[in-house]
Amino acid sequence: MEIIGEKINGTRKRVAQAIAERDAGFIRDLACKQAEAGSAWLDVNAGTHPKQEADDLVWLIDNIQAVVDTPLCLDSANPEALAVAIKAVNKTPIINSISGEPQRLEGILPLVAEYGCRVIALAMGEKKIPGTTEARVTVVHTVMEATRLAGIPDEHVYIDPLAMTISTNTQSGSIFLETMRVVREAYPKVHFTAGLSNISFGLPARSYVNRAFLTLTLAAGLDSAILDPLDRDLRAALLAAELVLGRDRHCLNYTRAYRAGVFDNAKDKA
Amino acid sequence: MEIIGEKINGTRKRVAQAIAERDAGFIRDLACKQAEAGSAWLDVNAGTHPKQEADDLVWLIDNIQAVVDTPLCLDSANPEALAVAIKAVNKTPIINSISGEPQRLEGILPLVAEYGCRVIALAMGEKKIPGTTEARVTVVHTVMEATRLAGIPDEHVYIDPLAMTISTNTQSGSIFLETMRVVREAYPKVHFTAGLSNISFGLPARSYVNRAFLTLTLAAGLDSAILDPLDRDLRAALLAAELVLGRDRHCLNYTRAYRAGVFDNAKDKA
Repeated sequence: MEIIGEKINGTRKRVAQAIAERDAGFIRDLACKQAEAGSAWLDVNAGTHPKQEADDLVWLIDNIQAVVDTPLCLDSANPEALAVAIKAVNKTPIINSISGEPQRLEGILPLVAEYGCRVIALAMGEKKIPGTTEARVTVVHTVMEATRLAGIPDEHVYIDPLAMTISTNTQSGSIFLETMRVVREAYPKVHFTAGLSNISFGLPARSYVNRAFLTLTLAAGLDSAILDPLDRDLRAALLAAELVLGRDRHCLNYTRAYRAGVFDNAKDKA
Repeated sequence: MEIIGEKINGTRKRVAQAIAERDAGFIRDLACKQAEAGSAWLDVNAGTHPKQEADDLVWLIDNIQAVVDTPLCLDSANPEALAVAIKAVNKTPIINSISGEPQRLEGILPLVAEYGCRVIALAMGEKKIPGTTEARVTVVHTVMEATRLAGIPDEHVYIDPLAMTISTNTQSGSIFLETMRVVREAYPKVHFTAGLSNISFGLPARSYVNRAFLTLTLAAGLDSAILDPLDRDLRAALLAAELVLGRDRHCLNYTRAYRAGVFDNAKDKA
């Protein structure tokens, strides 16, 4: 599974401060640490006012690219900022994100098509997140019609079925998994991604819930996830799940990670 | 999922000593602790010489039943010892286990049928454990033909697809899950059970592998498991998996267990 490192996000207070103060060292350090921890992509979210966003994104991109060559996931709903940011990246990025919202589709899809980008598509329309599998799949149909019309190949689309907290709806996990199943049947070539940790919002002992959800979504075919690659516990759970699913030849990734200390907090019981 | 508490097993040194010394307090304590920790059944394995086994099983059963009313899982391959033990139990037990081995089927099935017991059936024949899904399913067909012939209803049969260590075959987890899928299609009413911890034998950080496997087998329909109910980490993983699978109404089991301290070792990260 490909990890999209989530830490360079201006909605986080410390990152916002680094952006405001042009603290390049802080951002470069986050980029290096996430790349070393095995991120396939680094999410870049300026989290700033639309007027300021393009400048801030380019500053972030320049600093990240100064230290790592990991491709980027440009995280913005602002087509103008994205149009500027796309020109600043060295490798073709993922755009994060579109949804069923017509304005977002019209603003962002032409950029995705023109630059051959990949794109994350949220299974939600203009307002709130649909509460049923059927309603989410309906949004995905709308999105896929639009991406195909724009000439974007299905394999460039990453569907996010949207992980909502179980604390307010115990079926949230099942709806996510069922949405994946139905979408994959209709569009076998699309990828799936998600920000996983929402699933446990408001619950105690969240790490257990996050690990169980990661394991189940991996088995269901989630092939990327937006998460904190520095969370060793989650990485360990990911490695164990891939091992159990028979996706780790000769147990190499697992045993290498063990030797590298990823499991250092694990209770090694029989 | 129903937990079959595994701790009263004479192949464990401390339990063997308690049996030899007729240390009733030790056995009663193990029974109480496992029952309190939510075991639906308690496994009872004397682990002693066939000549001695019936006496030891009855002594164990008497002491367990003196303190708890949890039904028992009589763990022996010895029909004579089982015939004696069955008469000593207060509630209809599970017999653990039969396999495709004709001698075991002939010796044990009449007892299972006569007393209306449930029975665990291992997906293996006389000698070694089949290395492929197909070969395991073939054994299950043999077993099911025999149980049906003996008049045992399918819903009294617990198929154990056999968890083998991933360290020697990375497909062990997949073979287990695929065997479950095929068997369930052929026999929709049977139950599934397993001793899960074999999966991680020989690997480091086993708790991660055990949890991932437990989560995946639960999703696939495992409805009981032979495990250590005092392993809080495994219980916590079980509760989290059932929560994520939408099987915990109002998150009640999860939040109750949290308040009871089951998650006390959990790293509660966001």
